[in-house]
Amino acid sequence: MVYFLQDGLAPSPYLSKEVEVQDICSKNRNSDKIVIEEPLEIRCNGLPLVVTMRTPGHDDELAKGFCISEGIEVTDLQFSDDLASNVIEVYALSFDPTSSQRYSFMSSACGLCGKRTIEELQSRLPKFNFFSRVSYEILVGLPDAMRDYQVGFNSTGGLHGVSLFTLEGNLLCVREDVGRHNAMDKVIGWASMRDMLPLNSYILCVSGRISFELVQKAIAAGCPFIVGVGCPSSLALELANKYSITICGFVRNGRGVLYSGFDNVVY
Amino acid sequence: MVYFLQDGLAPSPYLSKEVEVQDICSKNRNSDKIVIEEPLEIRCNGLPLVVTMRTPGHDDELAKGFCISEGIEVTDLQFSDDLASNVIEVYALSFDPTSSQRYSFMSSACGLCGKRTIEELQSRLPKFNFFSRVSYEILVGLPDAMRDYQVGFNSTGGLHGVSLFTLEGNLLCVREDVGRHNAMDKVIGWASMRDMLPLNSYILCVSGRISFELVQKAIAAGCPFIVGVGCPSSLALELANKYSITICGFVRNGRGVLYSGFDNVVY
Repeated sequence: MVYFLQDGLAPSPYLSKEVEVQDICSKNRNSDKIVIEEPLEIRCNGLPLVVTMRTPGHDDELAKGFCISEGIEVTDLQFSDDLASNVIEVYALSFDPTSSQRYSFMSSACGLCGKRTIEELQSRLPKFNFFSRVSYEILVGLPDAMRDYQVGFNSTGGLHGVSLFTLEGNLLCVREDVGRHNAMDKVIGWASMRDMLPLNSYILCVSGRISFELVQKAIAAGCPFIVGVGCPSSLALELANKYSITICGFVRNGRGVLYSGFDNVVY
Repeated sequence: MVYFLQDGLAPSPYLSKEVEVQDICSKNRNSDKIVIEEPLEIRCNGLPLVVTMRTPGHDDELAKGFCISEGIEVTDLQFSDDLASNVIEVYALSFDPTSSQRYSFMSSACGLCGKRTIEELQSRLPKFNFFSRVSYEILVGLPDAMRDYQVGFNSTGGLHGVSLFTLEGNLLCVREDVGRHNAMDKVIGWASMRDMLPLNSYILCVSGRISFELVQKAIAAGCPFIVGVGCPSSLALELANKYSITICGFVRNGRGVLYSGFDNVVY
């Protein structure tokens, strides 16, 4: 169990690198840490699935989590520990290449309107029932609890963080990435490798804004609680309301705003 | 000229909408403004080019700017003023559909490594020469000068802003979007509609982090100066160095950090 926790909280060794910079006012040269961004190609059954710009490390989790959002059932993963190899092979039972090479919202977005996009997404996403409720005092403390483990953000100021908590507020996993969707894919991939899905009695916490894509990924993983330091978009909120998901945004200094799923919060 | 300026600084009327929220501590219900996010399908010569999640408004600029990043020469645009119609038609002289349906970094990213990605991108992007230099005092003041015009951010706290300045620090255009790449596409599209490209004597200023994708878009538009409130990623910096572009990050309270192109800044 101790190993289990450490594994989820251990940062990637490839989060940042040192570069030479110049203070623009004093002209002093010194070194500064910047975030690493590298392309990763995810291939499925030998066919290209997606190329994403990500922060290296936990690539297997990223690929697994990405496939869950896409509705692809992964049977095996093959990847190299070598950082220079930015390709990961995924094997799946059924994989339709014509519906791939697109992010989920793209395969759902019909270009007509957000309402139609959500309807099409609903026909694809799994239905899920949950009876979990969570205390408001737990929710408002989560971003602070995550911060100590945002190793990359703390040293560079330039990484998104996503974390997974129990309903009691215990932190299980933190992942960081230049892309917020990648950070969430990593956390969902981590949980799925431990047979924790559906995440119907867990909370996902994000360090920034709550986009449509993040809500869609949470639903694909069966998670009914999303906490964010930022706020949701209109389409994110519309989708959350369809699934009675709780979105709690602008969580800072022990305060926050509930945007949806008010009844799932206990006082 | 007055119209010209007003046009670039006039916000989209579709940035935000009111929703009912609940204060998580007091349980008080009230209304709050959230950011609008809707899908936009960009079609080229009748074929699907991309679906992007964007904040509505200035869709013609977004489509034009997106095409510039993709190296697609637009001859005409057709779009509806109706917000419910989230489709825009672009016409181009030459358009190869097999190389489309991907963002630029995807068509360049080979899944091998960032270095190779940059080499492939360099073969596609236009070469550009510039002899412009800019005062450090101008650079450190730009994010503050943009803030008053970030109407959507100021009312919701959830929008990226990108702006275009002259080398003297005059603000010409501000655009906001849920996606930072969309906000930059809008600004570049706006400038291109006024025959201002290449932007070799202008400065692009972004409200957040400076990703690889943003640097690539700036290069495609010929702009040698990028200022950001956040910091660049490793790959963004590598690309900027190849083109001797100046990146000034963490610009706050009259201070900032130069990451590249030190010699283009005047003291």
